[in-house]
Amino acid sequence: MRGILLSDDDLPGPAPGILIAPAYAGTGPVEEERAEVLARAGYVVLLGDYYGEGKRAADAEEATALMFGVEAQRPVLARRMAAALAALAAQESVDATRLGAMGYCYGGKAVLDLARSGADLAVAGSLHGVLDRPPQPTQAIKASVLVMHGWDDPLAKPEAVVALAQELTAAGAEWQLMGFGQTGHSFTNPRANSPENGMAYSAAATQRAYAALDRLFAEKLGR
Amino acid sequence: MRGILLSDDDLPGPAPGILIAPAYAGTGPVEEERAEVLARAGYVVLLGDYYGEGKRAADAEEATALMFGVEAQRPVLARRMAAALAALAAQESVDATRLGAMGYCYGGKAVLDLARSGADLAVAGSLHGVLDRPPQPTQAIKASVLVMHGWDDPLAKPEAVVALAQELTAAGAEWQLMGFGQTGHSFTNPRANSPENGMAYSAAATQRAYAALDRLFAEKLGR
Repeated sequence: MRGILLSDDDLPGPAPGILIAPAYAGTGPVEEERAEVLARAGYVVLLGDYYGEGKRAADAEEATALMFGVEAQRPVLARRMAAALAALAAQESVDATRLGAMGYCYGGKAVLDLARSGADLAVAGSLHGVLDRPPQPTQAIKASVLVMHGWDDPLAKPEAVVALAQELTAAGAEWQLMGFGQTGHSFTNPRANSPENGMAYSAAATQRAYAALDRLFAEKLGR
Repeated sequence: MRGILLSDDDLPGPAPGILIAPAYAGTGPVEEERAEVLARAGYVVLLGDYYGEGKRAADAEEATALMFGVEAQRPVLARRMAAALAALAAQESVDATRLGAMGYCYGGKAVLDLARSGADLAVAGSLHGVLDRPPQPTQAIKASVLVMHGWDDPLAKPEAVVALAQELTAAGAEWQLMGFGQTGHSFTNPRANSPENGMAYSAAATQRAYAALDRLFAEKLGR
């Protein structure tokens, strides 16, 4: 696995760490911009890699193939995320008692799977994540989970939202759902422009989601 | 109908107006405190009355009887709310082009019914509202709707949330749902203390709900 670590040069001491799980195409402009914003805010940020070798897909076809490669061995996703979190926690610049994670699309699923594994995580944020449960059992969830979801997302229907809510409740998680009406998948991606397929950018949903997630990071990670 | 109007003495000119629909017991400390906060923030606030004569129930039994009296003639609820909104809009201190509404419990239903009627409303906020649809057809919804919901609310199950989402989407509304895990009905009420019946105060949910609603009022009513 090959991630990218960002932090401010002038950190006064060990800082909270945030792991970002990219969308299914691998790290791109959306994840990079977000990482910069969080690093400037004083977090140490790891842009994670759940494919290996820091792969970035050239197009949707390649991204889909990479994603199905991991999906076919689903428990691997949580293990790779756990390895990334451990690498982040091991940084000298990081206060390992204050860790959060966020992810987009398939990376949202990756973050949920990490939280489901009982990882030592204060915050788990999923942005238009895919919500279906992995085969391995859900552990007691330590993270405060924030699910940011476009209600018209074709990859996560209302039934999947309701099932996730039930799962998180049963796992004892503190959790919140933000559902955005008239909004589909990929709402954080300014290049998403396929409303007929339920995938389109929404500036309003993006702004509301990031604002809520930033507040939760600040609340739980003590910044 | 007999409401209570609150506003700051030093308003520089016509201000946006907010109608508050109380919980089923009629206006009490929760609604009054909220009205004061909003008035201090520069809104003209009307504590509405959907029972008549400004009735406040002495206990849960009386509140239930009052509520069923209105519920038995459900279309009346939206009409009484419309009359309250018109009274608010007619105040000299109010800019009638900038109106919002919020409500608790049965008052959440009242605000939703007002929005469903196509009222000229920029914001409609429901706090642990009851979500079922009235018999009259839903009109094109002008309000930006924010549904703040405890996921374990016994008065509004996940199926009702999903049905409301579908209704709001079909009505063309801009809408958002905040779902709070491990949270039931009455979460804004510090005196609610019946978790075994799914009704209990949650300081965290209250704070998150009010913060989101305040931001939406500020965004849509231009304060």
